[in-house]
Amino acid sequence: MTGADAILETAVANGIEICFANAGTTEIPVVAALDRQPGIRAVLGLFEGVCTGAADGYGRVLYRPAMTLLHLGPGLANGIACLHNARRADCPVVNVIGEHASWHRDADPPLHSDIKGLARTVSGWLRTSRKAAGLSTDTAAVIAASRAGQIASLIVPADLQAARLHDFHSARKEPVFQPVDRGLIRKAAAAMSRGTKTAMILGNRLLRRDGLEIAQKISSATGCDLFANTFPGYVDRGEDLPVVRRVPYFPEGAVTLMSGYETVILAGAHDPVTFFGYEGTPSRVIPDTTRTISIPGPGYDMVEFMGYLEDLVVKKKGLARARTGRSVQSKPSVPTGVLTSETACLTIAALLPEGAIVVDEGITTTFPFYSASSASPSHSICTITGGSIGYGMPCAVGAAFAAPGRPVINIQADGSAMYTVQSLWTMARENLNITTLICNNGGYNIIAVELERAGLKDFGENARRLVDIDRPGINWVGLSRSLGVPAVRADKAEQLAGHIKRAIKEPGPHLIEMMVKP
Amino acid sequence: MTGADAILETAVANGIEICFANAGTTEIPVVAALDRQPGIRAVLGLFEGVCTGAADGYGRVLYRPAMTLLHLGPGLANGIACLHNARRADCPVVNVIGEHASWHRDADPPLHSDIKGLARTVSGWLRTSRKAAGLSTDTAAVIAASRAGQIASLIVPADLQAARLHDFHSARKEPVFQPVDRGLIRKAAAAMSRGTKTAMILGNRLLRRDGLEIAQKISSATGCDLFANTFPGYVDRGEDLPVVRRVPYFPEGAVTLMSGYETVILAGAHDPVTFFGYEGTPSRVIPDTTRTISIPGPGYDMVEFMGYLEDLVVKKKGLARARTGRSVQSKPSVPTGVLTSETACLTIAALLPEGAIVVDEGITTTFPFYSASSASPSHSICTITGGSIGYGMPCAVGAAFAAPGRPVINIQADGSAMYTVQSLWTMARENLNITTLICNNGGYNIIAVELERAGLKDFGENARRLVDIDRPGINWVGLSRSLGVPAVRADKAEQLAGHIKRAIKEPGPHLIEMMVKP
Repeated sequence: MTGADAILETAVANGIEICFANAGTTEIPVVAALDRQPGIRAVLGLFEGVCTGAADGYGRVLYRPAMTLLHLGPGLANGIACLHNARRADCPVVNVIGEHASWHRDADPPLHSDIKGLARTVSGWLRTSRKAAGLSTDTAAVIAASRAGQIASLIVPADLQAARLHDFHSARKEPVFQPVDRGLIRKAAAAMSRGTKTAMILGNRLLRRDGLEIAQKISSATGCDLFANTFPGYVDRGEDLPVVRRVPYFPEGAVTLMSGYETVILAGAHDPVTFFGYEGTPSRVIPDTTRTISIPGPGYDMVEFMGYLEDLVVKKKGLARARTGRSVQSKPSVPTGVLTSETACLTIAALLPEGAIVVDEGITTTFPFYSASSASPSHSICTITGGSIGYGMPCAVGAAFAAPGRPVINIQADGSAMYTVQSLWTMARENLNITTLICNNGGYNIIAVELERAGLKDFGENARRLVDIDRPGINWVGLSRSLGVPAVRADKAEQLAGHIKRAIKEPGPHLIEMMVKP
Repeated sequence: MTGADAILETAVANGIEICFANAGTTEIPVVAALDRQPGIRAVLGLFEGVCTGAADGYGRVLYRPAMTLLHLGPGLANGIACLHNARRADCPVVNVIGEHASWHRDADPPLHSDIKGLARTVSGWLRTSRKAAGLSTDTAAVIAASRAGQIASLIVPADLQAARLHDFHSARKEPVFQPVDRGLIRKAAAAMSRGTKTAMILGNRLLRRDGLEIAQKISSATGCDLFANTFPGYVDRGEDLPVVRRVPYFPEGAVTLMSGYETVILAGAHDPVTFFGYEGTPSRVIPDTTRTISIPGPGYDMVEFMGYLEDLVVKKKGLARARTGRSVQSKPSVPTGVLTSETACLTIAALLPEGAIVVDEGITTTFPFYSASSASPSHSICTITGGSIGYGMPCAVGAAFAAPGRPVINIQADGSAMYTVQSLWTMARENLNITTLICNNGGYNIIAVELERAGLKDFGENARRLVDIDRPGINWVGLSRSLGVPAVRADKAEQLAGHIKRAIKEPGPHLIEMMVKP
C-alpha cells in the first residue's frame, strides 16, 4: 500500500464519498489509488473551478465535505474563486493538493509556486504533510477540521503519496464543536422577552429545516422577525417553513430595514455589511444605536444554542403567543408574454418542483425570484455567498451529487456562467438531473447598474466594451450542445414554461436559454 | 480628474497601450476613466485567465507590458494560473487590481479576501496604493518594475480611484537594468576559447533575433552548441537564424544530452531541472561534474552581455572558425492520410506562413513540431513556460494584439483548451487573425503517459474517469461557432492542409478541430 492509499482509506473511514478532481503528474499516486478504492467516486471537472465549486455545492447540501484533488499551485489557484464562496458559506470542503516531491521542489521546477501562500487565503485549516507515516493522521485531521464548517487544505508532496507503507492503521477524528456561551443566549432571550422590536438573522445550519422549525417557534412566541444575510449559503423554504427575509443588497434598503429594530441577534450569521462601499453610507447596515448580540456560527454547536434559546423563550417562559410565522401567500401562476426578469422568475417559481434545490446565480435577473418563490413547494436555495461569480453551475453539479433524488434548478446569469462553463460537460458525463436556466441579457448588467449608481449613464466605446457581452452574442444552445447537454431557447414565458416542464420530467441535464428583455 | 484618470494618464505616458480587463464594481472609476482615455484600448475577456494570458502573450511578443484590470481577490485568483506562466517566461505584465474602499475593507464584506497574499505568489513587484495623490508615482513604478521582465502588481482601493485630484503631474520612470558582471563573461569566454565542449543555453531576450544573431556568431567562432530551456517563452526561428535545440522534456534524454558537455553557460536561461521529480533521477539535468556558468537574465542588460561576449570570443580573439550555425534541413512537404501527432505537425510546419507566431500548447501532440518546423520560413514560437495549462488561447489573443500584421497559429491540446475556452469569444469580438488548431485526442494524454511511466497501464474506472475526456466527446466545431469563431473539422492531413490554407488567407479567427489518432 502507498501513501496515497493511506489517504483514501482514511478518507473513506472518515466519511468522504466523492472526489472532484483534476489531477496532474504530481497526483498520479492518488489517481492510481482511486483506481483501487471503490469507496470514493472520482468525478472529473475540466477546470478546477468546477471541482471546488462542486465541493461547495455538495457541502452546502449535506453539511459534510467532499474532497477535491488539485494539481499544484496553478490548479489550486484556478479553484480559489469558488473556494472563496464556499468559505463565505461556512461550507465544509477538503482540498488535497499535490506538491512536487519534497527533494524536487527545492530545485524550483517550472510548475513550482507558493502553494501554501495561495491556500492560506481561503483555508481555515492548512497543513503540508511531512512524512508518509503521518498521512493517515493528516487526512483524518483535515476532514475533521472541515466538518466544523470551513475549508481545510492538505498539501501532499508526490514522494509521500508514492511511498510504500508497511504498517497502516486508519486514523479517525471527530470534529470538535464549541458549546455556545449560555450567558450570551440568556441575553438574547431577555431582549426578546422584554418585547423590544427584535430581528434575528439566522446563519449557517440554522437555515436548514431543523433550525428553522425552532426559529419559527421562537418567532411565534416573541414576535421577533426572521432574516438571513443577503447571500445565504443554503436555505430550506416553502410549505410549513417560516418566511425568512434576506437583508437587501443595496445599502439604502438594508439600512432602512435594520433601523426599525431595537435589537438584532446574529444567530450564526455574519454582521451584515453592504456588498460594496458607497461614499456616505456606512459599511455596517445595523445602526450603532441598535443593540447587536452576536452568537457565533461555524465551529459552534448551533443546534444546542437554538434548543436552549427555545427553552428560555418558549418552553420555560410559556410565551406561546399566537402569531403566524409566515405571511400567507399564494403560489404564482405562469405568466404569458415577453420574458423579463419578472416574468421569468414568476414562471420558474410557479413550476418549481417539490424538493428542488435552486442554485441562484441570476444576479440582476433573479432579484424578484426569492419573494416570488416563497409560496412554492418545499425547496432549498443556494446563493452567491462571497460574490465571486461563476459559482452557480459547479454548485449545481455538487448539489446533484449530494441529493440525487432532488431536481436541481440553476438560474444562471450569462456573464457569470461563462466563468465555469466547463461544468456543463460534467453534467453531461454524469447525467445529472440539473436544469440550467441561462439568463441571456447580453451583458454584465450588474456593472451597468453600478455604473449608473456612480453617475455614468451614457457609456462610450471603452466602457461599453467592458459591460456588454453581446458582440458577438453567445449562442448558449449551441454551446451547451457542444458539451453534451441538450438545450433549447425561450423568448416567451409560455415557451419557457413548456421547456421547464419537459426538462424536469426527463432525466439528465438540460439547458434553457432564456432571452430576457431589460 | 479622478485617481483613476491619473492611473491611466500615467500609464499612457509610460507606454501602456492596451488593457485586458474584466472589471467589477470596485474598478468602476477605472472603467469610467477608460471611457475618457483614447490612448488605451480596453479589451474584455470573459474570464480573468483570458486577460492575464493575453497580457502574457502581448508581453512575450513586444517585450513591453500590457495592463490587466482585475476585480478583487477572486478576479486575481482566476488570473493566477496564466500569470504563473508569464512569470516563468520572465514576461513584463502590469496588473491593476481593484480593492474595496479602504474604510470598507475592514468591515470584511463578502468579496473581501487577502489580495496581497494572492498577488505575492506571482508578482516580482507588489504595492498597495495608500493615497490618491500617489497614484501617478505608483503607476509609473509598477510599469517600470514590470519592464525589467517580471509581473508587477498594483492594488488600488476604490476610494482612491474615485478621489478628485486637483493637482496632477504625470510621473515617468524608466526601468533600471543591471550591467552583467564582466568577470563572469570573461569566464564564459575563457571556457569557450579553450575549446572545451560547451553548451550555451539561451534565455530571455537572447532568443530574439538580435540575441540569436550574436549567439550564432559566437557559436560559429567557438563551436559551442546553442540551446533553449525545455519551454522557452518566445523564440525567433527559421531562415537565417541558428537552430536552437530545446532541452528535452523527459529526464533520460535531458540528462544524457547535458552529460556530453564539459561546460554549460546559462545565458539568461534557467538552470534546467526536470519538469517533475522522478525517483532515482536528479532534479538538475546538468551533471555536477559539468562546470556551470550562470549569467542572470531578467533585470540585467542582456544585449550588453552578448555584445561583450562577442567582443571577447569573436572580434578580439579573431576566432572566426567556419562552422555552419545551422544544420541544413529542408522544409517538410504536406503528408497525406490519417492525422497523427506526426502528420499533423508536418502539415502545419509545411504550411507555416512567413512571420507566423506559433503558440504551442499541443502538449503530447506537438512533441514533433519543433524539429519539423526548424526549416519553415521565419516565425516565432511561444511555449508553456510554467506548465500551467490553458495558456495557449489567451496567449494567442495577446500575440495577435501585439503584432496585428503577423498570423497567429495556436496549436492547442483539447484538455488544456477547455481551461480558458472563453478566449474564443474575444478572438471573435476583436476579429483577431488567429488560427486555432485543436488537437482532439479525447483525453489528458500527458497524464496517461505519466501513469504509464509510473507503471500503471490498465486503468480501472476511477483512473479512466480522470484521464479521458471523451465521454461525452467535446464538439469543438459547435463550441467554437457558439462563441462566434468559424470552425471546421479535419480527419485527414490533406483536409487539414486545405483548411489551414483557407484560414490563413481569410482575415479574422478560425478554428480547425484536428481529429488526432494516437
